[in-house]
Amino acid sequence: MRIDVKKCAALLKEQDNILILTHAHPDGDTLGCGFGLCHALLKMGKKARVINADEIPKKYGYLYEDMPVYDFKEDFIVAVDVATENLLGPIADLYSGRIDLCIDHHGTNTEFAENLLLEKTAAACETVYKVICELGVETDKRIADCLYTGLSTDTGCFRYASATAETYRIAAELMDCGADNGRINRIMFETKTKTYAKLERLAIESMQLYCRDRVAVITVTQKMYEESGSNEQETEALAPLTRQVEGVEIGITIREKPDGTCKASFRTFEKVNAAELAKCFNGGGHPQASACRLNCSVDEARKMLVEKCGEFLK
Amino acid sequence: MRIDVKKCAALLKEQDNILILTHAHPDGDTLGCGFGLCHALLKMGKKARVINADEIPKKYGYLYEDMPVYDFKEDFIVAVDVATENLLGPIADLYSGRIDLCIDHHGTNTEFAENLLLEKTAAACETVYKVICELGVETDKRIADCLYTGLSTDTGCFRYASATAETYRIAAELMDCGADNGRINRIMFETKTKTYAKLERLAIESMQLYCRDRVAVITVTQKMYEESGSNEQETEALAPLTRQVEGVEIGITIREKPDGTCKASFRTFEKVNAAELAKCFNGGGHPQASACRLNCSVDEARKMLVEKCGEFLK
Repeated sequence: MRIDVKKCAALLKEQDNILILTHAHPDGDTLGCGFGLCHALLKMGKKARVINADEIPKKYGYLYEDMPVYDFKEDFIVAVDVATENLLGPIADLYSGRIDLCIDHHGTNTEFAENLLLEKTAAACETVYKVICELGVETDKRIADCLYTGLSTDTGCFRYASATAETYRIAAELMDCGADNGRINRIMFETKTKTYAKLERLAIESMQLYCRDRVAVITVTQKMYEESGSNEQETEALAPLTRQVEGVEIGITIREKPDGTCKASFRTFEKVNAAELAKCFNGGGHPQASACRLNCSVDEARKMLVEKCGEFLK
Repeated sequence: MRIDVKKCAALLKEQDNILILTHAHPDGDTLGCGFGLCHALLKMGKKARVINADEIPKKYGYLYEDMPVYDFKEDFIVAVDVATENLLGPIADLYSGRIDLCIDHHGTNTEFAENLLLEKTAAACETVYKVICELGVETDKRIADCLYTGLSTDTGCFRYASATAETYRIAAELMDCGADNGRINRIMFETKTKTYAKLERLAIESMQLYCRDRVAVITVTQKMYEESGSNEQETEALAPLTRQVEGVEIGITIREKPDGTCKASFRTFEKVNAAELAKCFNGGGHPQASACRLNCSVDEARKMLVEKCGEFLK
């Protein structure tokens, strides 16, 4: 059932022992939503905790430092920034069909939860902020840091067209509440580990242009992880690089998995719908940023993807 | 004399035939201030025009397309985002001692103008926005695009610690007035010309670390401009790259001039005051971003600068 912010807050007020699920291969928005909401529920005296199928990258440590960890049997399950159950990753089977509430901003949400609060905002954290306000919880510095992180990371630091005046206004309110915008953005956007800096150089060198230079493809192989000392966790920042070259309309990043199959990320400008493109390969996402998994080698993937891009650009 | 926004607007209301000066080697903030204010004055029925000592990079074309160009003898001279007269470049001599009003945000402003409106905001465009509101001019899309450009470019797209909640709020208001944030940020931050992409690769390859990896130096030589087909106008985006490597506290970009002398840009984090550092070499700027000119070769400059950095890091 589709619900609004008011109803969502009312639902949460009634509940206790709340388990919050975030999507696999977690990013700043899902973690910001999860830990932001968790802080708020704990402040209300409820028991709550956040789980994720994958290891949470170290840089997000400030989202949950000092957060008490409660052990309890969950009475209510919330998914945040999760468009489909399978995006929960390996833990999807455990919770499939049992999710009471989903707070999300993906137009592609499959309505898998009993209650869905869906607003097509730039970041799901915008909606979680409204829910927390409606809950009557004061947004303290910890909550503000969490939610600001989601806003900033899902908009490329307020860069993408998806960021609205409302996004900026909520960011300002979070900064009033103590969000450390300078530090958060430095961690998320300014700091390259030495291993990532090496990987980035290799990735940029791998860039090839297709379709009269309208498609750019970066490939990240297992060999490149070895050579740079980097790993898949550090590849998030590579995808935006693909569409930065003048004239490129579709940017593709193909990452090789240890088993030789791969994952592709798409970045586009307004003319091409990245979600539609990913859908052709059973993936999904946003109009300008999407992804899919491919059961084939990097070379086969590139050939197949470039061909499909050619059709989209016609 | 120091004045406030109200007094500044009152002064401008009384005047006509207004010449607006922007700083040499222009950036988005000085041009955003200049053209934003010019649009507003023209809407009031006044004659006004913006001049700059250097050629304005093409990407800023949208700031003044369709702006009528009036020829008149100036009765009132305004400098925007200009900390010292010599930053006007080759035209400084023409106007020295004759500047009636300066609207600026640099703590290092030398109070060279008859009237100075100085607010230590993230971007001078924040103050120009307040002046335009005080003038009673409605901020239309053209004005909003100009001012948003200044806000965004001077904060690294709202990334730096210098951006305040007020900066975000003004950005939101400008977006309400029609500022095309997606397009502007794409032009300013997402689009690399092919020549710049080549130059950037060469610049990153030139990066060397000093002082136990706490200082990173990039050098851009005339040979690199030749090899890449790029030029000095495209080097603005290089400086922020220097401080992105984990552990680096001072990032330096040294650009070789055609005559073999050079210009250095500094980027730092809170611990080191970049303006103080630049001051040692007769330069200036902001606490985290500054620059100076050096009458020596790139190699001599690097040696001298790294030595001074060593002292600053003690």
